[in-house]
Amino acid sequence: MTSAYQELTRTFQRLSRFGHLGAIAGVDMQTTMPPGGSQARGEALAELSVFMHELLTAPALEGLFSAAEQESLNDVEQANVAEMQRAWRQATLLPAALVEAKSLAGSRCEHAWRSQRPANDWQGFSANLKEVVRLSREEAQLRAAAASTSRYDALLDLYEPGMTSARLDATFGALKSWLPDLLQRAVAKQAQAPLQPLGPFAVESQKQLGLSVMKLLGFDFNHGRLDVSAHPFCGGVPDDVRITTRYNESEFLSAMMGVIHETGHARYEQNLPQQWRGQPVALARSTAIHESQSLFMEMQLGRSRAFLQHIQPQVVALMGEQPALETPNFIRLAQRVKPGFIRVDADELSYPAHVILRYEIERALIEGEIEVEDIPALWDEKMQQSLGIDTRGNYRDGCMQDIHWTDGAFGYFPTYTLGAMYAAQLYQAVKRAIPQLETLILNGELQPVFDWLQQNIWQHGSRFPTEQLLRNATGEALNPDYFRQHLEQRYLAD
Amino acid sequence: MTSAYQELTRTFQRLSRFGHLGAIAGVDMQTTMPPGGSQARGEALAELSVFMHELLTAPALEGLFSAAEQESLNDVEQANVAEMQRAWRQATLLPAALVEAKSLAGSRCEHAWRSQRPANDWQGFSANLKEVVRLSREEAQLRAAAASTSRYDALLDLYEPGMTSARLDATFGALKSWLPDLLQRAVAKQAQAPLQPLGPFAVESQKQLGLSVMKLLGFDFNHGRLDVSAHPFCGGVPDDVRITTRYNESEFLSAMMGVIHETGHARYEQNLPQQWRGQPVALARSTAIHESQSLFMEMQLGRSRAFLQHIQPQVVALMGEQPALETPNFIRLAQRVKPGFIRVDADELSYPAHVILRYEIERALIEGEIEVEDIPALWDEKMQQSLGIDTRGNYRDGCMQDIHWTDGAFGYFPTYTLGAMYAAQLYQAVKRAIPQLETLILNGELQPVFDWLQQNIWQHGSRFPTEQLLRNATGEALNPDYFRQHLEQRYLAD
Repeated sequence: MTSAYQELTRTFQRLSRFGHLGAIAGVDMQTTMPPGGSQARGEALAELSVFMHELLTAPALEGLFSAAEQESLNDVEQANVAEMQRAWRQATLLPAALVEAKSLAGSRCEHAWRSQRPANDWQGFSANLKEVVRLSREEAQLRAAAASTSRYDALLDLYEPGMTSARLDATFGALKSWLPDLLQRAVAKQAQAPLQPLGPFAVESQKQLGLSVMKLLGFDFNHGRLDVSAHPFCGGVPDDVRITTRYNESEFLSAMMGVIHETGHARYEQNLPQQWRGQPVALARSTAIHESQSLFMEMQLGRSRAFLQHIQPQVVALMGEQPALETPNFIRLAQRVKPGFIRVDADELSYPAHVILRYEIERALIEGEIEVEDIPALWDEKMQQSLGIDTRGNYRDGCMQDIHWTDGAFGYFPTYTLGAMYAAQLYQAVKRAIPQLETLILNGELQPVFDWLQQNIWQHGSRFPTEQLLRNATGEALNPDYFRQHLEQRYLAD
Repeated sequence: MTSAYQELTRTFQRLSRFGHLGAIAGVDMQTTMPPGGSQARGEALAELSVFMHELLTAPALEGLFSAAEQESLNDVEQANVAEMQRAWRQATLLPAALVEAKSLAGSRCEHAWRSQRPANDWQGFSANLKEVVRLSREEAQLRAAAASTSRYDALLDLYEPGMTSARLDATFGALKSWLPDLLQRAVAKQAQAPLQPLGPFAVESQKQLGLSVMKLLGFDFNHGRLDVSAHPFCGGVPDDVRITTRYNESEFLSAMMGVIHETGHARYEQNLPQQWRGQPVALARSTAIHESQSLFMEMQLGRSRAFLQHIQPQVVALMGEQPALETPNFIRLAQRVKPGFIRVDADELSYPAHVILRYEIERALIEGEIEVEDIPALWDEKMQQSLGIDTRGNYRDGCMQDIHWTDGAFGYFPTYTLGAMYAAQLYQAVKRAIPQLETLILNGELQPVFDWLQQNIWQHGSRFPTEQLLRNATGEALNPDYFRQHLEQRYLAD
């Protein structure tokens, strides 16, 4: 006889397989699809999400969950059921009509944004965004009522289960107290060592460099590949992970660091537990833990002196010798601090300012404290305060620069800075576990680092809550001091 | 209140949208996916096909069809219901267990074939093929009983509704009476004008040529694109048509003609009726009519003197000047007749021999007149008779060369030659409708040709049965004389 647990795993296996088709159609949409395909694709993906929502909210599941509680399940199976229930609760909260309306409004807003952003068309964009915000508030209200939290916290929980805006306010508030000063001092310090100019760099050489760095970082090319898209991302499924970057002939670090970042995401996906594949417990723990893996690779490892020293000969071999690529200048380039308009181009010290600004605006928006019309003025004010940058009238490089809000992904932004803090804490734990770490990196011997990540993060999927995962790996809960120490060490030391 | 007809259209719209996701995942599998992704992709696609089969065989449909008969529907709606019922009957005839067994046996046979073919391993292959044939016979038996036809005719009907083996025997029999002689005379005639050798040709130049020819042929790049795969195909969905070719640096005609052929398929797909999109009546009429569109572009138009003369300067501009590309030699290259082992490489005159041989063998196989063990000897005998080629012991380039039988797609092969005959008949009708056709082609002014196809074929989707479509377009039913006249004119005249 089939147990209730087995029946549940069958439903979630189906969901995983349909999710596979959606993931590949999504990757194709961003890397390959011609523009005219977008409406039909949007409709097909909306149809899929409605169907997956039906599967996940089938009335039979509730009974199966009750029956499974009476069955004797091991630890992993229990964690799997807990993740199933989490997904089920999140889904049953929303009526199908709302799911479909939000998906369609998101597709419409995102599609129009692709031409509205270059045209700096805030009027056109805000009309679509209002509908997305309206539906996101409706979603947040339903989730908040069920979880007895605030509306914004209910959305935040989708990306980092257990996190609250109260904790974020405390953590980000602390960051805001010391980061602007650190940033100013780093900029002043770097002004004393001017940079050599760079370029140009052939796209093909940049691609070869990216592939070579992916190999160094252990990317499995039998189960993934590198493509090109307007914005770098990591998509696909664990057995077929698609990462992307984009190339600019006048500059190669941005594409290379994009590849290193996405390779961090990819290695997590590729090393999620094989034996539970297709089940919720085999998924990545959270968006914030995912980001910790990409930032571990990019910020902790990839921009470290030792790593840059190790890859410098390879960079010169592919890009040709030039003064800018001599090691001291190459390191200065990779660690350069320069506040600017664009989040995705931001350096490690400016990035949290971009995130905190978005967090404050989106929380107020979801809580109903502000409206879409209020965004540009708030944006201008906060950019001036935090980074001293004037964005007035420049929507394109201001509040229209990101894709997240177009799709209604409110609650996502904080995970970037949470991920940066987790990454710093994990890297300190790696340093303690591998005393000779710097020498290994200088020699490109990274296997011990991968083994540590595999042992402490990758293999566990969603088996433990984030806080327990972090405690098991590092001995303590989130401690932002590691992030501060890391930044002071990198940008102010010597 | 929702009418039964509206409810039916909603079911078929869902099927179309899920089919969209399967089509894109299929294209990705053949153009992009890394090898290690294949198992997970196979499982996801199998899950999708089981689900789509469930949708199409849902018990509620029968009642909706009855109710829709009482509703007042216009012509197109009636044709749409007829196509829905056709799809529904085809699906409900087969028990789910048989569908699944055939899909698994087909996957197994095809997967093993990929290594058995290069190894010339007929013993290994035939063991798997027997199981595919057994299940295909079972399928044919069920379909034949329901339709009161022969087993093979029931399968043929899947690819060209209304066609019978009696009509094929008569048509192909006539072809066999004159084609071998025509072929011999063409080969003898061409021996008098030897060819200049070609090459090499950079892949990038070949790609530019392909894109340029697609543009000339009216391909809509806003709703489609060109990629690379092991075997050329046309896939995707009408709003996003993906065609592929493959490149060989020693030869460019094969890639270019592949692109022209697939562009023929693509223009049909891209111009299927927009207003009924997602409904069965908006689908291509049949596999054979689809092939008529690709062969219209490739064989009737693309290999004509006038077309080759028009594109020759473009070819020279991209490939560089060489004696082989001077116009008379370029035309001889594109119209060269050279019987060989491989169907997909066959010229226009040899191709029907390959098809008729396969038709005769697969019909006898499905009707139970022969067994899998009998295939090689029959293949050798028929290749010797029709093309004078010795295939004994060479299974790899003989009866193991095609993918169709591995998947159990019996009944498909005749559509290649039916398509060639339809194409010749359509082209004659175009000539009658556009007296100055040759001059227009010489000037690259092809819009009147596209308008004629749009008017007579593309816009109708599946609104009419094939025979009526052909009668409306050309004034008569299938008449193979046009194909003969075309071949005699091209290969024996002057």
